[in-house]
Amino acid sequence: MKPINVGLLGIGTVGGGTHAVLTRNQEEITRRAGRPIQIVAVADRNVERARELVGADVTVTDDAFSLVKDPNIDIIVELIGGYTTALDLVMMAIENGKHVVTANKALLAVHGNEIFAAAQRKGVMVAFEAAVAGGIPIIKALREGLSANRIQWLAGIINGTTNFILSEMRDKGLSFETVLKEAQRLGYAEADPTFDIEGIDAAHKATLMASIAFGIPVQFDKAHVEGISSLDAIDIKYAEQLGYRIKLLGIAKRQVNGVELRVHPTLIPTKRLIANVEGAMNAVLVQGDAVGATLYYGKGAGAEPTASAVIADLVDVTRLATADPQNRVPHLAFQPDQLSDLPILPLEEVETACYLRLRALDKPGVLADVTRILADLNISIEAMIQNEPAEGEDHADVVLLTHVAREKDINAAIHKIEALQSIHGKVTRIRMEALNG
Amino acid sequence: MKPINVGLLGIGTVGGGTHAVLTRNQEEITRRAGRPIQIVAVADRNVERARELVGADVTVTDDAFSLVKDPNIDIIVELIGGYTTALDLVMMAIENGKHVVTANKALLAVHGNEIFAAAQRKGVMVAFEAAVAGGIPIIKALREGLSANRIQWLAGIINGTTNFILSEMRDKGLSFETVLKEAQRLGYAEADPTFDIEGIDAAHKATLMASIAFGIPVQFDKAHVEGISSLDAIDIKYAEQLGYRIKLLGIAKRQVNGVELRVHPTLIPTKRLIANVEGAMNAVLVQGDAVGATLYYGKGAGAEPTASAVIADLVDVTRLATADPQNRVPHLAFQPDQLSDLPILPLEEVETACYLRLRALDKPGVLADVTRILADLNISIEAMIQNEPAEGEDHADVVLLTHVAREKDINAAIHKIEALQSIHGKVTRIRMEALNG
Repeated sequence: MKPINVGLLGIGTVGGGTHAVLTRNQEEITRRAGRPIQIVAVADRNVERARELVGADVTVTDDAFSLVKDPNIDIIVELIGGYTTALDLVMMAIENGKHVVTANKALLAVHGNEIFAAAQRKGVMVAFEAAVAGGIPIIKALREGLSANRIQWLAGIINGTTNFILSEMRDKGLSFETVLKEAQRLGYAEADPTFDIEGIDAAHKATLMASIAFGIPVQFDKAHVEGISSLDAIDIKYAEQLGYRIKLLGIAKRQVNGVELRVHPTLIPTKRLIANVEGAMNAVLVQGDAVGATLYYGKGAGAEPTASAVIADLVDVTRLATADPQNRVPHLAFQPDQLSDLPILPLEEVETACYLRLRALDKPGVLADVTRILADLNISIEAMIQNEPAEGEDHADVVLLTHVAREKDINAAIHKIEALQSIHGKVTRIRMEALNG
Repeated sequence: MKPINVGLLGIGTVGGGTHAVLTRNQEEITRRAGRPIQIVAVADRNVERARELVGADVTVTDDAFSLVKDPNIDIIVELIGGYTTALDLVMMAIENGKHVVTANKALLAVHGNEIFAAAQRKGVMVAFEAAVAGGIPIIKALREGLSANRIQWLAGIINGTTNFILSEMRDKGLSFETVLKEAQRLGYAEADPTFDIEGIDAAHKATLMASIAFGIPVQFDKAHVEGISSLDAIDIKYAEQLGYRIKLLGIAKRQVNGVELRVHPTLIPTKRLIANVEGAMNAVLVQGDAVGATLYYGKGAGAEPTASAVIADLVDVTRLATADPQNRVPHLAFQPDQLSDLPILPLEEVETACYLRLRALDKPGVLADVTRILADLNISIEAMIQNEPAEGEDHADVVLLTHVAREKDINAAIHKIEALQSIHGKVTRIRMEALNG
């Protein structure tokens, strides 16, 4: 059967992995897909390195736009990243009737709606398994595997850099700054780590999963995004004492009046399987009304794990390339004219339990003041750690775990607690999720 | 759009769950599938109960054959189980041009090749996500999500009954017989538990996964099948001391000259995520050359978890019903004319590390005899526990962990050890898997 011709935009880490795996496993992939899938052209700024990687039979150019116009190319694989040139290239590929496979979560979380609409008009596919959790087929699981379910919530460790940092901080009792430097040295963190450590990358991925789970348009601008850069090692230790691990979770939860979409450091009970996902590994826990909880675990980044997802998409697109557009799996799981207008809820309306740490003057009555503030706002306390002041100090750490309360009330309580004379400095607040069904 | 009409064969636990979930989530499922999926007819021996469950708008009959002949029905859902009537019904449904969705692992593991060949001839789909690991979309993950990979091995806890029993034996230090009775009382084990406890059910599922992973025909008769009924609680305790859990694993592993396909109690390092899958939960760990290890976890049985998989198949079949047969995902992941003749290896050629427990006379030289036998067969020892004899006894337990060795050599060693005058009774052997990448 006629081969499917692929044009590859960007042959860096993931592009190189995609070429390597397609070449190495060509025989098995062809037996699965029913026809050969071949990279016929590569665009990369570094033409010489690209040429070295792909050999003489493949067209190599530094002009990515020439590929999206090439009538000989069936599928464009976009691995350039970013929102600007990548958007132009993807839109032009679609306009030229090409299917698109991309690993670009930022592009889709921000411009997904216009991209999917254009693809719908042209009857082409846009596949993005590699955009979330690397090689774990979580998009496919959510979109197809769990299609019987009303998804209730999902929670994922979907950024390997931050999970590596949190694991190291806990294991070795080191500070965030120290571990970040180590992670950069080992290649687990970028020179500019902002997107990872500030939770932006996780929020891009959570945005895409929320859309597929609940059938809503992508709405990255409504996500609450909080990273780990201000996380103190002492809170990891206290959490451990209370039976919890701190993970950066991407959370999407259905409520009656809308959808919660948030990324923040989160306490999880240590006994949960997902609390034991360590190092750069990823995992996503999904709660459906029929299936209950299912969990998907694996490598969330790296050349070949991500290539695994890119190529799975290439096989899917190849299998479906000649099918009627209306018979294909919809981009966001639900038929495009059937998306819902369920709003993303403002964080103030979200309810979670919380971990609160305060530095309190060691004298009678202080704890009574704090607990009265909480009680007046209907926030009840589940557990507490009260330390003695260190030698020569008159303040000591007090840690409180609250029961589930509304964010708005927790904010008000924190405000009032910080105003107490007997409390020193800011209150540290970390949200908690029990993650039970 | 015109609804898809489903005929349901058997409305017991899973059939009832399928009807309930399809009804409850009808709006979301239709938004996903692009057209309504409706059960129009049910066949069950208990017509009255079926009538109560589905109401007056659905045809109810005790004649399953009338459904597979009904020209108004597009998809047959087979939930009868067994190899005899179920086979006739499935084959007749296919002959009549109907797609088939089934949860029947026994039927497919034994008769899959003829069923898939018939479906291929008639251009219909046979989907069976519900046949393995209940609601976990593991068939989809293996067949589509990991299609880039050369799968190296997979290992699964794919029988909830036995995992529940093993978890209870370990937790409470109880014997197999005691826990089995408790499991039967709680409904976790059938009145006749043979299929579960003897590993047959797990072997059916492992057979199907092996075919999809490696592109080989189903060959249940070549599987090595060993259950947990003769497992002694003391071995669970010794394994724990050595840092291992004992799980009933279904294992499929690619070797140069063939495929290992085996089900047996297995020691797994406690630190592995899959070793911590407790109770009736299921999990499958898959090692691919590109993606590395991925793990899939969830409920492996029950009305609605299994219904979740049945309905996911219904949505898939609905989406693809009008596509060309050659564009659909192949039954066994690989194109039907591209299956490989890689043989299932005889167990004697399999290599694993082993746990050996023997009752040895407490006198000098006994251990030297045992270790010489092992050394002569090139079996090296990784760890050992040597107990003192209990009060008034002259034999004591000796536990050995070997390094990886060939089954044939381990068998020979056991034979020789049992022949020693100083060894009392049989040697207990449990295989071990490190499950690292």
